[in-house]
Amino acid sequence: MTTTTTATKQFITSEQLLEHWQGHRNLTRRTIEMFPEKDLFEFSIGGMRPFAKLAVELIGIGGPALKGINEKTTEAYHEDAFVPTNKAELLKKWDEETEVINHYFNMISEERFQETFNLFGQYEFPVYQNILYFIDNEIHHRGQGFVYLRALGIEPPFFWERF
Amino acid sequence: MTTTTTATKQFITSEQLLEHWQGHRNLTRRTIEMFPEKDLFEFSIGGMRPFAKLAVELIGIGGPALKGINEKTTEAYHEDAFVPTNKAELLKKWDEETEVINHYFNMISEERFQETFNLFGQYEFPVYQNILYFIDNEIHHRGQGFVYLRALGIEPPFFWERF
Repeated sequence: MTTTTTATKQFITSEQLLEHWQGHRNLTRRTIEMFPEKDLFEFSIGGMRPFAKLAVELIGIGGPALKGINEKTTEAYHEDAFVPTNKAELLKKWDEETEVINHYFNMISEERFQETFNLFGQYEFPVYQNILYFIDNEIHHRGQGFVYLRALGIEPPFFWERF
Repeated sequence: MTTTTTATKQFITSEQLLEHWQGHRNLTRRTIEMFPEKDLFEFSIGGMRPFAKLAVELIGIGGPALKGINEKTTEAYHEDAFVPTNKAELLKKWDEETEVINHYFNMISEERFQETFNLFGQYEFPVYQNILYFIDNEIHHRGQGFVYLRALGIEPPFFWERF
């Protein structure tokens, strides 16, 4: 009988993943900035949420989720925990969350990334999958924001420019 | 003098990344399927490309890029190497590329992910960054496809359902 052993290969380190995520967050921040104040809170296509609402969803996930992962709390996700009334407020909160994300992300051990956790008491997946979901969800919604900008006749930022 | 040593933590293995990517590719496939034939090739918002064009871009990147990384060729990216005339052709090619991606991705060593490579003779970055870009670019464009579907009055697939 032949035994086949497949060596486990590392794809990326946690430091590289955090830098990648913060690069995306910086691009999303510039996308928020490009919206005219009124359109940020009101413009919509096909019954979807305005971009401010999508950004608030992202703010409600990243930092709070990482805090929950570290403290092993399963408190539910609160979509309406933060309700900005203008772009400046939204950007200020965005920047505060940058530090929250850096703080809590760096506390997660290599072993923990592989452990299953019931995030927000609802999403029971390995921690690395939950974190990839935060980033994917941000890229997904920002892509939608790019369509809003194009529909408004505004050229979005370059997708490949991150910092 | 105090020396601070930061241990390098693995975030994910290459096997986990490939599964993650193919999950996204499966969701994109279902997004293509949901478009009415005509709209797939013609519907557009704000002067953007129809979803078929975006899907063809994705097909032109994943497999060919991984082949280039493995064979260390710097042949340019060809946007028009594949021009489908209907949805079935597009989906057939999509499925063929699934195998191409699996084949070439698995040939990349752990060390190689960290090496810089001039992809398509144009994008000189560490291999892991190039691969993350392929996935991000797909999520970005699929998010745009979701807006097209909503604007067409069609409910997109669930973002979190991958397989």
